[in-house]
Amino acid sequence: MRSITIGAGLLAAWLASDAALAQTAEQLKNDHNTPGDVLTYGMGYSHQRFSPLTRINRDNVKRLVPAWAYSMADNNGQQSHALVMDGVMYITDHAKTVALDALTGKQIWKSVIEYPPETTRVVCCGIVNRGAALFEGKLFRTTLDAHVIALDIKTGKEIWRTKSADPKDGYSMTVAPLVANGVVIAGVAGAEYGHRGYLEGYDPQTGKVLWRTWTVPAPGEKGSETWPGDSWKTGGGSTWLTGSYDPELDLVYWGTGNPAPWNPLGRKGDNLYTNSILAIRPKTGEIVWYYQTTPGDPFDYDGVNELVQAELPINGQMRKVVMQAHRNGFFYVLDRTNGKLLAANKFVKVNWADSIDLETGRPVWSAETKSVFEKGPGHKVRIWPALVGGKNWAPMSYSPITRLAYVNSADFGWDYEALPLEEVAKLKPGVTPYFGVKREYVFDHPDGRGHLRAIDPLTGKSKWAIPFKSPNMAGTLVTAGGVVFTGRLTGEFMAVDAETGKILWEFNLGAGTVGQPVTLEHNGKQYVTITSGSSGPYVQRVGDPNLANVPPGGMVWTFKLFED
Amino acid sequence: MRSITIGAGLLAAWLASDAALAQTAEQLKNDHNTPGDVLTYGMGYSHQRFSPLTRINRDNVKRLVPAWAYSMADNNGQQSHALVMDGVMYITDHAKTVALDALTGKQIWKSVIEYPPETTRVVCCGIVNRGAALFEGKLFRTTLDAHVIALDIKTGKEIWRTKSADPKDGYSMTVAPLVANGVVIAGVAGAEYGHRGYLEGYDPQTGKVLWRTWTVPAPGEKGSETWPGDSWKTGGGSTWLTGSYDPELDLVYWGTGNPAPWNPLGRKGDNLYTNSILAIRPKTGEIVWYYQTTPGDPFDYDGVNELVQAELPINGQMRKVVMQAHRNGFFYVLDRTNGKLLAANKFVKVNWADSIDLETGRPVWSAETKSVFEKGPGHKVRIWPALVGGKNWAPMSYSPITRLAYVNSADFGWDYEALPLEEVAKLKPGVTPYFGVKREYVFDHPDGRGHLRAIDPLTGKSKWAIPFKSPNMAGTLVTAGGVVFTGRLTGEFMAVDAETGKILWEFNLGAGTVGQPVTLEHNGKQYVTITSGSSGPYVQRVGDPNLANVPPGGMVWTFKLFED
Repeated sequence: MRSITIGAGLLAAWLASDAALAQTAEQLKNDHNTPGDVLTYGMGYSHQRFSPLTRINRDNVKRLVPAWAYSMADNNGQQSHALVMDGVMYITDHAKTVALDALTGKQIWKSVIEYPPETTRVVCCGIVNRGAALFEGKLFRTTLDAHVIALDIKTGKEIWRTKSADPKDGYSMTVAPLVANGVVIAGVAGAEYGHRGYLEGYDPQTGKVLWRTWTVPAPGEKGSETWPGDSWKTGGGSTWLTGSYDPELDLVYWGTGNPAPWNPLGRKGDNLYTNSILAIRPKTGEIVWYYQTTPGDPFDYDGVNELVQAELPINGQMRKVVMQAHRNGFFYVLDRTNGKLLAANKFVKVNWADSIDLETGRPVWSAETKSVFEKGPGHKVRIWPALVGGKNWAPMSYSPITRLAYVNSADFGWDYEALPLEEVAKLKPGVTPYFGVKREYVFDHPDGRGHLRAIDPLTGKSKWAIPFKSPNMAGTLVTAGGVVFTGRLTGEFMAVDAETGKILWEFNLGAGTVGQPVTLEHNGKQYVTITSGSSGPYVQRVGDPNLANVPPGGMVWTFKLFED
Repeated sequence: MRSITIGAGLLAAWLASDAALAQTAEQLKNDHNTPGDVLTYGMGYSHQRFSPLTRINRDNVKRLVPAWAYSMADNNGQQSHALVMDGVMYITDHAKTVALDALTGKQIWKSVIEYPPETTRVVCCGIVNRGAALFEGKLFRTTLDAHVIALDIKTGKEIWRTKSADPKDGYSMTVAPLVANGVVIAGVAGAEYGHRGYLEGYDPQTGKVLWRTWTVPAPGEKGSETWPGDSWKTGGGSTWLTGSYDPELDLVYWGTGNPAPWNPLGRKGDNLYTNSILAIRPKTGEIVWYYQTTPGDPFDYDGVNELVQAELPINGQMRKVVMQAHRNGFFYVLDRTNGKLLAANKFVKVNWADSIDLETGRPVWSAETKSVFEKGPGHKVRIWPALVGGKNWAPMSYSPITRLAYVNSADFGWDYEALPLEEVAKLKPGVTPYFGVKREYVFDHPDGRGHLRAIDPLTGKSKWAIPFKSPNMAGTLVTAGGVVFTGRLTGEFMAVDAETGKILWEFNLGAGTVGQPVTLEHNGKQYVTITSGSSGPYVQRVGDPNLANVPPGGMVWTFKLFED
């Protein structure tokens, strides 16, 4: 909220500077309280994806109809988190950034992204982009070939471009940057091509690299003892999903991905800081604390998933927490001031670990996982969840009203077998997929391959769960109107009662959705936006028969209540 | 209407055979009377694109909302006329045929079309397809590389494939076939690449060519005297839009295109049967009568436009007429029993001819057109309408209630100059565009480059006309509910009052539309379908600033009234 104690002269000056600079640090901090815009990935620095709006609610959501659509003219996946400021919506994909009139969908400008076609060789999981960040008149985004660029938000003209890494070394970028405390922060993908992960901070004015924090330490650095031999050099630890930010603590929470290769036999150890939650100072990149969810991970439990902040009552006391519904099937709740584990409970079927020890914070490995190391190559185990995870990348939402997290879960396992190290040695970083395991999915859940779940963060238990034939790979959004919005790979955008899990409304978008719904209001009307156009490893490689008749192709869709 | 005097036993047998064969010749004849389906291109053999439905009407059309969308996953133009039978919608584009559930938009099957990529070299005006024909359990369509194919309507499996011509000779096919009196009839495009046009009839069971009728006669044949020297060999006369059919007269009406090259100096003469309306026996291809609209055409007035049948009162007598809103800017009305000209009036600004002589049926050339021939190469004239035409290809509709034709007109001219014959001689049929003229558009209409017009067929006068910045290139549909549906290149699908021209409703499809709206009812609800996704020479080559911010990309859209 803007201060009301500010002097009149100062206020005028502030507003003038506001208009000139477009969006200030203050506006970014207050994004969750200003439902007329969407300035940040996650609909607020806390990434709750919760809207206080109630005009669209559980009673009238069945009156939702499309207000407009906009063709992305691209058959790759559309995963962009829409940002909206001053009535203009910003959408990214791998090939372009567009600015649209948020009320009509008419294009204001389009800014084309070019990258060498061979870049896609090191993109494991969809030729996508997840969105932009806004700050002081600029739009920041990443490119598939690992550049960070700044565009003029009025014209789409490129202001600066910084090459972060080279795709020939396995790197790519799909992340929406985060602007925190005046620094543009972005991460990289590439563990599936044997890269070494990092986070990087850039000067928003110039694109100058202010700091780089490796997620895999070099020999001699703290944590390097967790990597045998040269394994750190290609150790993975991607950072391909946007972190959240607590401006009061001045801490950025960023998830790191799986160690590389997936085969763990040549990198026995914890493999810090892969599969970790990092708390970082945005100005310096310093790791203030970390918590590792899946030490020495054999199963590609790529721990990049969103880190959602909330205030939760624990033992009668309100705690500042950060939460993660992890691919490994545990729902983690940590004290975000210090990284102390408060809860870690299974939210889907899990057998890679029996539990998480609340004292040590470490997983208690199951017999199955122990056997991977004890029996070595050629030993097949059936593990839940599969590498797709108990939850894939698409962000959950959290309602401070219901105190539930709304999670699209994937409910299946896999048969897993580590290959001999001689085979792993043949993998080439930046060239071949960096796996080193044999795998086959096991679809055994009687109700379907996925659920939309309303999860109690402290127990992992679902208050309700709606089964779906195919897992949903879209984000969720929850509102004070008691509605959860999400979508399906078969194309239905849907609204669900946040209390009961009843499907209240759906609309066929004409292509699967892997998008991130957002909402805002303007002139007393509430709008909901989502992209259609699916992609990703599940869609492209699993061969789900339920998706055989779903076309690709992308649109931006905005809905509103029907008006008589 | 089905006969009610038929014996009960016969009726049962007929229904059984009906079900087995899917759609019979009788059903095709009655398509305009059965608003639960759309079995023919043009919404009935008369091509009126008139629906007797009134559930959606001028009073409630503002309640129209999308029912579903389907992604065509293609950035070329979507011009397919949807056909709907037994609740299944069939849509074509250059790369595929799809069968969709007409009520939900869910894909039932997709049948992919492959053609050599070099085919597109001889496609002047959009990589498109305009739709299919249905008959006795088969779906017939053409391919860009000039094949006619039959698919099983239940599965999309190819039943037969007939090569009609070769793209290396300038031929391509985009037309929706016509099934008339048990014969599949299709035409070719290619005058812009120096082909020699024809129509062809195929056996629906086997694909065997039953007849071919050249639109340009060979030496010695009737009409060959209108072609000097070898000019007939590359004489054009395309047949790329579907003809209409009068089952009582057993006559097919098919428009033929411009002579080739555009430059007329090497082919002085009438150039029969280019730019003609042909009345053809479907069983044999025999030309029963013809009427030539634009003899010896210098201006690419590609006379393929749709030929709409109606019964019109003329001098107190109802006449069976066939009507054409011609690219050359005249609205023609002919007696369709014998080809006699009844009316030919300007419906846009025209200066290539002063008038059409009702006795001879011939145009009275203007001074400007005469000067093209008299002054020869290098002489520049300003001509209306431009080659885009007073109306481009997108079909008009005709309401027997208002007795008005609903036409999207293009209202601009061009500066035209014939090149010397030495230059024309360098053009290579099947290789280079076969033009031989210099040209530049002249956009001089104060209100905009196009109008939606309600035209009195007998006078050419517009009862009303709505101006648009860019010309509309979508078809029109008119209903007994008093609504005209059409769409814009900027993406608005709109409903207009058929009596007054008031825009009643519009929706932004997110990409320009060059589609053909159709309507049908099911279980007491009326649906309206159109495609989005634009293309064509105007969109691609004119550089209209009004279209600079309109993306490509195609969808099928179906609308219905909002239900509380």
